[in-house]
Amino acid sequence: MTQPVHDRATGVNYDPSGGERHAHKWGFTDTYFEFDSPSTVRLAGNRYPLAGHTLPAFIPFVEAMLGIPLRAEDRQEERVDPAVPDTSATGDLLEALEGALDADQVSLDDRERLIHSHGQLSVDEVYRILYRDALERVVDVVVYPQSEEDVRTLVELADRFDIVLIPYGGGTNVSGALAIPSQERRTVVSVDMQRMSRILWIDEVNRQACVEAGISGKELEMALGTKGYTSGHDPDSVELSTLGGWIATNASGMKKNRYGNIEDIVLEATLVTPAGVVETLHITPRNSTGIQPRALLFGSEGNFGIVTKAVIKIHPRPEVQSYGSLVFPSFEKGVEFLHALRKTGVLPASIRLVNNNEFRFGQALQGEPTFWGSLRRRLQRFVLFQLKNFDPKSLAACTIVMEGTAAEVAQQRRTIFPLARSYGGISGGSSGGKRGYMLTFSIAYIRDFFNQYQILGETFETSVPWSRIHDVTRSVTEELERQTKVHGVAGRPYLSYRLTQTYHTGVCIYFTMGFSGVGLDRADEVYHKIEQCLRQVILDQGGSLSHHHGVGKIRQQFLPQIQTEGSIKVLQELKKAVDPKNIFGARNGVFD
Amino acid sequence: MTQPVHDRATGVNYDPSGGERHAHKWGFTDTYFEFDSPSTVRLAGNRYPLAGHTLPAFIPFVEAMLGIPLRAEDRQEERVDPAVPDTSATGDLLEALEGALDADQVSLDDRERLIHSHGQLSVDEVYRILYRDALERVVDVVVYPQSEEDVRTLVELADRFDIVLIPYGGGTNVSGALAIPSQERRTVVSVDMQRMSRILWIDEVNRQACVEAGISGKELEMALGTKGYTSGHDPDSVELSTLGGWIATNASGMKKNRYGNIEDIVLEATLVTPAGVVETLHITPRNSTGIQPRALLFGSEGNFGIVTKAVIKIHPRPEVQSYGSLVFPSFEKGVEFLHALRKTGVLPASIRLVNNNEFRFGQALQGEPTFWGSLRRRLQRFVLFQLKNFDPKSLAACTIVMEGTAAEVAQQRRTIFPLARSYGGISGGSSGGKRGYMLTFSIAYIRDFFNQYQILGETFETSVPWSRIHDVTRSVTEELERQTKVHGVAGRPYLSYRLTQTYHTGVCIYFTMGFSGVGLDRADEVYHKIEQCLRQVILDQGGSLSHHHGVGKIRQQFLPQIQTEGSIKVLQELKKAVDPKNIFGARNGVFD
Repeated sequence: MTQPVHDRATGVNYDPSGGERHAHKWGFTDTYFEFDSPSTVRLAGNRYPLAGHTLPAFIPFVEAMLGIPLRAEDRQEERVDPAVPDTSATGDLLEALEGALDADQVSLDDRERLIHSHGQLSVDEVYRILYRDALERVVDVVVYPQSEEDVRTLVELADRFDIVLIPYGGGTNVSGALAIPSQERRTVVSVDMQRMSRILWIDEVNRQACVEAGISGKELEMALGTKGYTSGHDPDSVELSTLGGWIATNASGMKKNRYGNIEDIVLEATLVTPAGVVETLHITPRNSTGIQPRALLFGSEGNFGIVTKAVIKIHPRPEVQSYGSLVFPSFEKGVEFLHALRKTGVLPASIRLVNNNEFRFGQALQGEPTFWGSLRRRLQRFVLFQLKNFDPKSLAACTIVMEGTAAEVAQQRRTIFPLARSYGGISGGSSGGKRGYMLTFSIAYIRDFFNQYQILGETFETSVPWSRIHDVTRSVTEELERQTKVHGVAGRPYLSYRLTQTYHTGVCIYFTMGFSGVGLDRADEVYHKIEQCLRQVILDQGGSLSHHHGVGKIRQQFLPQIQTEGSIKVLQELKKAVDPKNIFGARNGVFD
Repeated sequence: MTQPVHDRATGVNYDPSGGERHAHKWGFTDTYFEFDSPSTVRLAGNRYPLAGHTLPAFIPFVEAMLGIPLRAEDRQEERVDPAVPDTSATGDLLEALEGALDADQVSLDDRERLIHSHGQLSVDEVYRILYRDALERVVDVVVYPQSEEDVRTLVELADRFDIVLIPYGGGTNVSGALAIPSQERRTVVSVDMQRMSRILWIDEVNRQACVEAGISGKELEMALGTKGYTSGHDPDSVELSTLGGWIATNASGMKKNRYGNIEDIVLEATLVTPAGVVETLHITPRNSTGIQPRALLFGSEGNFGIVTKAVIKIHPRPEVQSYGSLVFPSFEKGVEFLHALRKTGVLPASIRLVNNNEFRFGQALQGEPTFWGSLRRRLQRFVLFQLKNFDPKSLAACTIVMEGTAAEVAQQRRTIFPLARSYGGISGGSSGGKRGYMLTFSIAYIRDFFNQYQILGETFETSVPWSRIHDVTRSVTEELERQTKVHGVAGRPYLSYRLTQTYHTGVCIYFTMGFSGVGLDRADEVYHKIEQCLRQVILDQGGSLSHHHGVGKIRQQFLPQIQTEGSIKVLQELKKAVDPKNIFGARNGVFD
């Protein structure tokens, strides 16, 4: 058995063998929330820093926020074997697939087919499979290419047999991108890229590496780490999501201030399409050579072909990595600070601002304190609430990751903390900062835990200009309250948000919402409807359709509000040119 | 008469009325090099800091470098009225144009038509027009739209009358992008965007502005400057080139370390195409909403439509702007330093490294020294050559622009100068740095001056990985020597180069070359052939086809070496989808 590898930066114990994943829920089977007493929970396993600790405050916090008790009788059992329709793959097709690939590269297994037919949309996918109807339509075959040659062969076979290919990376999308279009009558083959996870070359002089697209973030970081490098791409899904998936989604990483978003990290990539291989043969730093084919990769959402490999920037692991945190009297003050910090030009690798609910959510996830821990917490509370007169119901907090040379980090520190003071900010110490980032990895497990008790929850995000932040958060808050009343939701909805990224012209707002579905007729449909209303409110207030989650299927109805007819037509014509038979028939975004 | 505005940062005197431009040569009619004694030249006018000073060392330097004398009898007279073919515009078309636009928006004037039929390719365009054959094909009509509505109307008329539209910005491209394809039989209309130069709105909170695409860099900076802002985009052509042109070329600015290249500066833009208006309706900081239509804008080189306006980032003018310079014992040491500096993560707005020839070229452009200036120069020489043992024939120099808050600039200074010392670098003072940037504006005037004496010269550029810099420069040097021998060029060729931009994975190399065409049969064709050989050598050594000049027509033959068949096919199909009748028939890049 392989030993776990402890990542000091994140506190996560990585299992080099990958670790067995939950079939439909988020993450690994060794990790799940469970009651360890009638009123306390803990995270099982030892994968995350949070794991193993009894959390006395968490259930009371959730009950208080939602205004309902968490009752044992509301617990619903997961469906053990969700129904899976028979495969429609013909003998001819299977013979051709098995002729072109090895036997273990082709699977008709029901469980595998179901796993490959959804992403991680909480309510529309995971919740439905585990507690409601199974999926009407699942993929007919799963294949596991091992080389670019295999991928080209699959595209040729798809053309010959008139079937659909849907690329599959880490299965972590939250956009419905993997859902099979209901109108699709052709055989659908899921192309799972996990075996294409090699680093093909590393060029240390020019700090770039060529990597197969099926590599997960965890595998990539472990492999680069052995040579002293990092890609710097650090999405919340980094353990599971893949390089190819990041490109197809136009992903964003936590530390983009230092390393860039995926479009900054990837220099060039190879896309195998029905029209041929789209690739730039010269890998050079920056070009003016006409429209760049790489522009077709980012956000392609599986509609154009399969990304097989990419050349990415690599960075020496930073000399210094240092965490920090700040507490502000209000979210508004925190926003003012972030805006001012942006203007200084000195940015830490990551800085996030959580609103009051999210701050308290994080506090509620603390374990039983030790004597010293308890003392420290009481002292912190004394300073904040007695000396500084912060209101515990309105304060907000920043978590910070600084990376770079000692001089760079010192300069960041010199800029950030004095500036924060002029907005009423108080340093909360480095452990609070580190803890904030650690919790990120646990959020989706919390979602799956509460699903059992018919509490439906999910995250959603947007990017907005600086001037519209409060319009968006206020309108979403109000609309959620209104909609949950309209639908007769018991208790109150929970809504928290954080600013996860700042840009020159604005920020990314990342919302977490949840409410009880107990007593609702078709709670999953109510949830879906409410989420769509919230998205409309975001658009009305000047927010974007998505900052990094993508469009997929659940956001495609909104596209005419953000793109002109001309833009949509051009993209659709482009699709026809690249893939006239719609082999890549996932029908995401404008390609429905 | 409008008074010139002195820009303290650049030392340039801007004429707010624009200033009259040379019809075919670079720049303004008030500015040109001329002999002020049999062996000395000066720059006429008072537009640039260099202007008005006698330059005693320049002609001797050029003669020494080229190994030939500059002889009065080799001077060729410029053609005063180059022949222009008759317009092919029909009465119907003209009637429709004059019905849709005002009378002063449509021109059939021969001179205007010729001006609009070329860019600033030295030998293939300017030299040919002034000293060789005129152009075979020129545009038939020039129109001056004043609004996006005008542009849409033009595209509709083009569709109805089956004519070609060629967008015209500042006319500064060096890629042949404006040349009319010889096979084109349809009427060709040049769409000059200069009247669409308004700033439509400025959003100071979110630091963005919406600007019409015909605005020149100079106009943009003057207009933003009155409000205390800058776009930060600073290409060498900034006085003349336009926002729309920057987008169409995928331009790069000198200060891209701080402000980004054009693709980083432009948030969204509007492209009027035959398939409709391509535009993103929500202006948000960063998106994951499928393939971004904005990807079709950058590098589109007039093949898809007309960029009418763009939303760009704006920045407060920096608190501090400070110049610096460094002298290194060799170009190689300078490269090592730049590579090391890149890794520190602390980058000045601009840092450029010139090789020995380019350093000496700059020195040769000094005026007669004052007493103190002479003393300073002698002192500098003493330090460099006696104390430090630098070889005057191998040293190289960096020029530096630092911008930002006082703290940022201080941090840059603390990083740059001590690091340079470990690579043998010596500070050359701020005046040398500033002077290096000032000279940039004079280079094209020098080209036009020497053209008169049959000395042909031009710049060309590439981007290369760090590891290939010396392979590229050495191979270009050797190939130029070989080719000039093969073609029987008199004397020696001149070649200098500088690294103008650094990136994570490599740099931009910007070459200047020149040689005497005296005695050659069709010197312009020889020049063209040699330039193509040099490009092939660059590609063979791992350089790119272009870092920021674009493909246009003179580099399109090389595209199959850098793009797969699949990539080219996809782009060509995209073109068919957007512009099935090839209204935008400039045939640049892969669209020939």
